[in-house]
Amino acid sequence: MEFLVSAIAATLTTIAFVPQALHIIRHKETRAISLQMYLVFATGVAFWLIFGLMLWNWPMILANIVTLALALTIVAMKLRYG
Amino acid sequence: MEFLVSAIAATLTTIAFVPQALHIIRHKETRAISLQMYLVFATGVAFWLIFGLMLWNWPMILANIVTLALALTIVAMKLRYG
Repeated sequence: MEFLVSAIAATLTTIAFVPQALHIIRHKETRAISLQMYLVFATGVAFWLIFGLMLWNWPMILANIVTLALALTIVAMKLRYG
Repeated sequence: MEFLVSAIAATLTTIAFVPQALHIIRHKETRAISLQMYLVFATGVAFWLIFGLMLWNWPMILANIVTLALALTIVAMKLRYG
């Protein structure tokens, strides 16, 4: 049960960034996006990734690699379209 | 060491949403913000909160309550200023 709840949680908090990235790709506009949020968030996700590596917890490692990639993509688009 | 890394990670991925909320409060403009992202993300955080309650892990419970409140504030502002 704990595994199921954490798997649902990890999936949702990871895939959530896909519509945000697509939204920016479509509109090429990032005025309302906070660069500071994504820099702090990406750093935090990097720490979650280190934590996942320490526990050698594969779902955690994979989810955090994907989330980090999506957060850094949004940072790159903010810098480009900002 | 694992406690320290997870505490840093939880703090950063939680406080990251503060500059985003302040950014929207200041500019009263949310065009680049994806409503879908925040709805999916808030649902995921609610599942992390349930997971924290299952483990009775206080840092996880508190971090997820704060993150959920910030995500729902951003949803409310998207609906208001969107």
